[in-house]
This record gives sequence, C-alpha cells and structure tokens, in this order.
Amino acid sequence: MSTVAPLDNPEADPRVKAVFDDIRATRKTDFINNMWRYLAFDAALLEQTWAEVKRIMATPSALDPLTKELVYITASIINGCSYCVHSHTAAATAKGMTREQHAELLSIVALAAKTNQLATALQVPVDPVFDKG
Amino acid sequence: MSTVAPLDNPEADPRVKAVFDDIRATRKTDFINNMWRYLAFDAALLEQTWAEVKRIMATPSALDPLTKELVYITASIINGCSYCVHSHTAAATAKGMTREQHAELLSIVALAAKTNQLATALQVPVDPVFDKG
Amino acid sequence: MSTVAPLDNPEADPRVKAVFDDIRATRKTDFINNMWRYLAFDAALLEQTWAEVKRIMATPSALDPLTKELVYITASIINGCSYCVHSHTAAATAKGMTREQHAELLSIVALAAKTNQLATALQVPVDPVFDKG
Amino acid sequence: MSTVAPLDNPEADPRVKAVFDDIRATRKTDFINNMWRYLAFDAALLEQTWAEVKRIMATPSALDPLTKELVYITASIINGCSYCVHSHTAAATAKGMTREQHAELLSIVALAAKTNQLATALQVPVDPVFDKG
Amino acid sequence: MSTVAPLDNPEADPRVKAVFDDIRATRKTDFINNMWRYLAFDAALLEQTWAEVKRIMATPSALDPLTKELVYITASIINGCSYCVHSHTAAATAKGMTREQHAELLSIVALAAKTNQLATALQVPVDPVFDKG
Amino acid sequence: MSTVAPLDNPEADPRVKAVFDDIRATRKTDFINNMWRYLAFDAALLEQTWAEVKRIMATPSALDPLTKELVYITASIINGCSYCVHSHTAAATAKGMTREQHAELLSIVALAAKTNQLATALQVPVDPVFDKG
Repeated sequence: MSTVAPLDNPEADPRVKAVFDDIRATRKTDFINNMWRYLAFDAALLEQTWAEVKRIMATPSALDPLTKELVYITASIINGCSYCVHSHTAAATAKGMTREQHAELLSIVALAAKTNQLATALQVPVDPVFDKG
Repeated sequence: MSTVAPLDNPEADPRVKAVFDDIRATRKTDFINNMWRYLAFDAALLEQTWAEVKRIMATPSALDPLTKELVYITASIINGCSYCVHSHTAAATAKGMTREQHAELLSIVALAAKTNQLATALQVPVDPVFDKG
Repeated sequence: MSTVAPLDNPEADPRVKAVFDDIRATRKTDFINNMWRYLAFDAALLEQTWAEVKRIMATPSALDPLTKELVYITASIINGCSYCVHSHTAAATAKGMTREQHAELLSIVALAAKTNQLATALQVPVDPVFDKG
Repeated sequence: MSTVAPLDNPEADPRVKAVFDDIRATRKTDFINNMWRYLAFDAALLEQTWAEVKRIMATPSALDPLTKELVYITASIINGCSYCVHSHTAAATAKGMTREQHAELLSIVALAAKTNQLATALQVPVDPVFDKG
Repeated sequence: MSTVAPLDNPEADPRVKAVFDDIRATRKTDFINNMWRYLAFDAALLEQTWAEVKRIMATPSALDPLTKELVYITASIINGCSYCVHSHTAAATAKGMTREQHAELLSIVALAAKTNQLATALQVPVDPVFDKG
Repeated sequence: MSTVAPLDNPEADPRVKAVFDDIRATRKTDFINNMWRYLAFDAALLEQTWAEVKRIMATPSALDPLTKELVYITASIINGCSYCVHSHTAAATAKGMTREQHAELLSIVALAAKTNQLATALQVPVDPVFDKG
C-alpha cells in the first residue's frame, strides 16, 4: 500500500540512476531500499533528499556513526514512522548496536516520553538558569 | 503559568525531602530544578519518576552519559516539550556537548523529521529484509 | 502573543453576542475565557465550535462530566496545547477532580506514552484476537 | 513486521517466565499478548514495564478501571500507536465499555483534536485565572 | 485490522442510508469508502462527521477545492494517519493535482518539519512584530 | 527563553553576513527575523536551512506562493511550533491571505485533526482503490 506507484525501471532516468549509483557506492552494497525507489517518482526530490542524507549521515563528523543512528531511531519512533523505525533499527544494528544498547535506547525514549508528558501536563516553568538568551 | 501550585515548603514532607536529598547527592549540587518542585505536588509520582530517571540516566550502562542526553534532547524536541528541551540541552552541555555536536544533533533531528514525513506521505512499504519477525 | 487580534468589543456583532450569551447561560457564569474571545475573529467558526463543545461536553450522555474532562485533559497534553491543558485542568477541578485523581491521571498518561513508544519502537504485530473486522 | 525477533521459547528465561506467570495470575487468563512477547527480548525492560502497568492499571485506585482504559485509549490514538489502540479498545470492552461510550469517547477525542489545533493556530493566551503558580 | 466490526448491511439503518445516499449524490459516485462504512457503527457520529466534511470540503468557499485537499493531505501526513494520507492523496489527484504539485507539496511538508523542529530545538523567541494581540 | 545565545554581532562572520544579505535581497526588506538570528549560532546550519527555504518557498514553482504558506501554517500548527505559527501566519497575511481564508484554513485543519483521529481510533482499513503500488 503506497500513495505513488514505484517506477518499473527507475534507472532508465539518468538522474535516478546517478543517485542509485551513488547510494550503492557510498554504502558498498547493491541493495537499494524502498525509500529511494519510491522517492524516485520525482527525480529532484530524490536528488535533494539523498544529498542531505549523504552529507549528514555518511560523512565523518562531530558525532560517531552509531550515535547518529540512535538519534535517527529516536526521531523515527516519536514521529511515528513505521518504515523509518524499521530501516534505522536495521542500520544501527549494522553499525554495531548491541541488544543491550537497543533496550537501553528504548528505555530512554520511553522515559523521555513520560517526563515530557508530565512537564507538559504540569506546565512547569523553565528555570531561569536554563535560559541562554 | 502552571497547572498545579508549587508547595511553599515542599521538604516539610519527608518523602519529598528524601527525593530532593537524593537528587542533590546524585547530581552533586544544591540546585533542584522546577520539574522536581512541581512533581512534588504528589509525593508518589515524584518518587517513582525520580527513581526511574536515576536508574536510567544516572547509572553507568551500555550507552555513555552524553549519548543518553542527546537521545533525551531529541525526544524532547519532537515531543514538543519546551521545558525539557531547555533542561536537557543544559544537561548535555554540562556533560560536554560542543557547539558542533549540538548543531549536528539538530541537523539529524531536522533530517529525520523530513525523511519521516516523506516516508509517511508516500506510505513506503517496509523492505522484507528489515523485518525481524 | 497571538496570531489574530482580539476584537475590542466582540459583542457588537450579534452572532458573537448570541454565542457568548449561550456560554454564560450554559456555564452559569459571566466569565468568557480567551478561547472564545479569540475564536470571535470569525463568527461562523465561533458558532460551529461552541455548538459542538456544548453538544458533546455540556449535555448529559453515556460518560459522566468528570470522565469527559479527564479525556479532554489527556488529549490536550498529548496534542501539546498549553492553553487547553490549563483550561481543561481548571474545568476538571471545577467538576470535582481531586489531587489524587489528577496525579493518577498523569501517571496513566505518562505510562501510556511509554508503552505507546515501546510498541512503536518494536513494531509489535497486532494480536489477531484484537481485530474486529 | 517487527524490529526484534520474538524468542522461540521466551519462558526458558526464568525472569521472563516470572513476568508471564504474574500477567496470567493478575489477569486470570492464559493469554499473553504480543506486547509482552516482544518486550521479552530484554528481560529487564519487560520486568520494569510490567511492574509499572500492574501498579497503575491493575491496582484499585482513585480512578475506576474503565475510566483508566478510556484515558489509555485516548493516549494511544493521539500517540498514533496502532497496536495500543487495538489492545486498549479490547481491554475497555472487556471492562464494560458500551458502544455508546465508545462512540462518545471518540467524539471527545475528535473534538479535543479540533479545539487543541484551533488554540495552537490562534496562539490564544492563557487566562490568568487558569494559572496555579 | 480494525477496532470495530463493520456492519453487514449498514444501510438497513435509515440514518446510515440517508448519509450514504447524500455522499453518493454529493460526490456523484456509487463508491462509499471505508471511512464511512466504519463510522456507521454509530449513526450519530456518522451524521455529524459527514455534515462537517460536506460543509467544509464540498461547498464553494474562500479556498479552491484543490488547495483544500493539499491542506488536508498535509494534516494527514503530520497527524500520522495512514488511511487519511491514502484517501486524500487520491482525492487531490481526482481534483487535478499533478505529479509536480505532489512532489512540491511533499517538499514543503518536509521543509516545514525541519524548520519547525529547529525552532523548537532552539526555542526561538517570537519576534514582537508577529504578535497580533 | 532560548537554548542558545544569539550572537551580539552575527554579521561579523562573513558566512552569516552573506546569508543575511541574501535574505534581505530576496525578501526586499531590512528585517531579519529571529529564526535566522538564532540559527546563526552555526553558520553551516544557517546556510543550509536558508538555501532550502529560498529554493522551495521563494522560487516560482508548481504551487502559488499563498498556497505554499497555507501548507506551511498547517504543518506548523500540527507540529506544535509556536514560533512558526506566528511567522508563517504573518507571511501568509503579507501574501494576501484574507480573514475568510484564514478562518477556512483553520476549519480544514480542525476537521482533518478530527477525522485523522477517528480513522486512527477505528483503524479503518485502506480501500484497495487508494493503493498505488
């Protein structure tokens, strides 16, 4: 069930092929997951989205690759994106997330959901010391 | 503006005092932030919430303390909790989060928001390889 | 801070006056809270919204008035509406919500947030016995 | 489709067996629903989650059992947890929720969604009378 | 998978039949989509929901029909309603949404998700010039 | 109240100055709203965010400028971003949104919130005709 029809042969479009080739080269795999196959319904949207994912997630930076995936899983859970929870849990596992780390991540997400709701329910005023400007 | 009145002297209640004392001892500070002062409207709720925060966030575990805070900030942003975004950004800074890491965290949260929405908009089917059972 | 300007004399508009009069009569008070004063920027929107609130919340029905307000507070917390958390916590208090009930309500909301996130994180399959058709 | 593999024989782990036994005893049924089977991927997470559910939902308290389930359904709908909407609608039905109460609950949730969004859209200022401190 | 059983012959109830007839007449089609078939579990809820949908979405007004559907798709994506994303994407397509407009709509939704999260993460203060009262 | 300190003289950084100059030129105004002043805490994040906003919102495309802003307001309301609701309501007004259009937009957002919640509550199955692949 999806809202756009995936293309029969998306790589017939050279812009799509260029992105798919870059995904394969960057990830060192032949596998192109459905997110990209469906985004290919619009070549510009595919190009822009991949460029941003590559720049942020596949480039060495101030946070290590596993931490980035833990943040991505967290966002995907709370944003309620079933596809993304699946794909980023798989990605984190591929990057070394252990069962203990997975369970602990879920504990933190669950705890944050709880305290976030409590603070909203009580409308707790922000302590002045937390204000940066 | 809040939905419950904070107590004038919350530590007159020995259950509240015991929690506040444990917060001070665990965090090695005299500062009790508003979240705990407002939760003190119900001693049981205060005790249970602090016990869980202490167990998950203040005990050595499979994830390092800064990573835990990055996950907590992420959850707080997406859950839309203004108080929690403030308090956990401050906590992460206290645990060593640099400006570069902060900006990168926000980039990932923003990217995830974007791809989460795109996957939901397209209703992308989950790749069978991501299914664990 | 708001996105529309409240009218100086909203009851100069007979449609607004009729709604405000009905609010006062239904609630047996002269107080018109800000929600209605701001909705008055568009008389039709005001009329439709009040008619629905009155029909659902101020008419005897299958759920008692306090239970209805507990559900409304729950929704307001999770939808992240600061105004609504304030107004419906006040309304529930006016309808007899005790401090114990308030704290217990928050415990359930916090627990649900936690288990909702866990189920989403694990993508737990729905048990066939829960399916009604 | 799920992100962790359910264990073939979860009760081979005595910690899991103890929780499952307590669920069966508390609920007076042999049925263990999938939420617990999947949480069993981590015994500690299972134990902590069940302990909290039992304490809050299965212990006599200031709110009656059906009201608690109505609040839980409300949270599950708004948090967008398909599994939880199914399981708690079933639980509420088992605790006596009538079709009329179900429809009325949905009316309130729908109305709250509407007025919550309107208050956010207009950024209605909180009336001073609603502020408790 | 659903939480209520659809009726075998919903139009045996004259209130349901009247709504279904009006849907067919308004939309000039014999097709009644599942949303209405499931809402028929409660005739009053069905009547009220359809009356509001018809008034807002099927009556000439200040916004053109396609713009209304674009707004509806946007809401459905962000509210995480899979059914609604499907039905309103189909409705927009029936009203003339092109592939380019669909892709652009998704770009805006994705961009808004990103900047909304950034503003929340930074807790950017509202500029006084944006305040209307 | 914010989580980062705005820079005293952000345009001392030539990368920030270049973005601010482009904002002024693109929008034909000297006014730089707070969103950009706070994003300036990280020049790269500022550059990337502005580039995307400019490309999507300030370039002629398949959707007209007012429709784009209506979509942006909708997203901002549902994502619960107070800052963004203010800034995009102001932007839409500047682009010609009338009071009638504003009220109608809010009616659609409120209606969608309602029907989105109802579909989630009932877990209505997607009609096969809505599936595109």
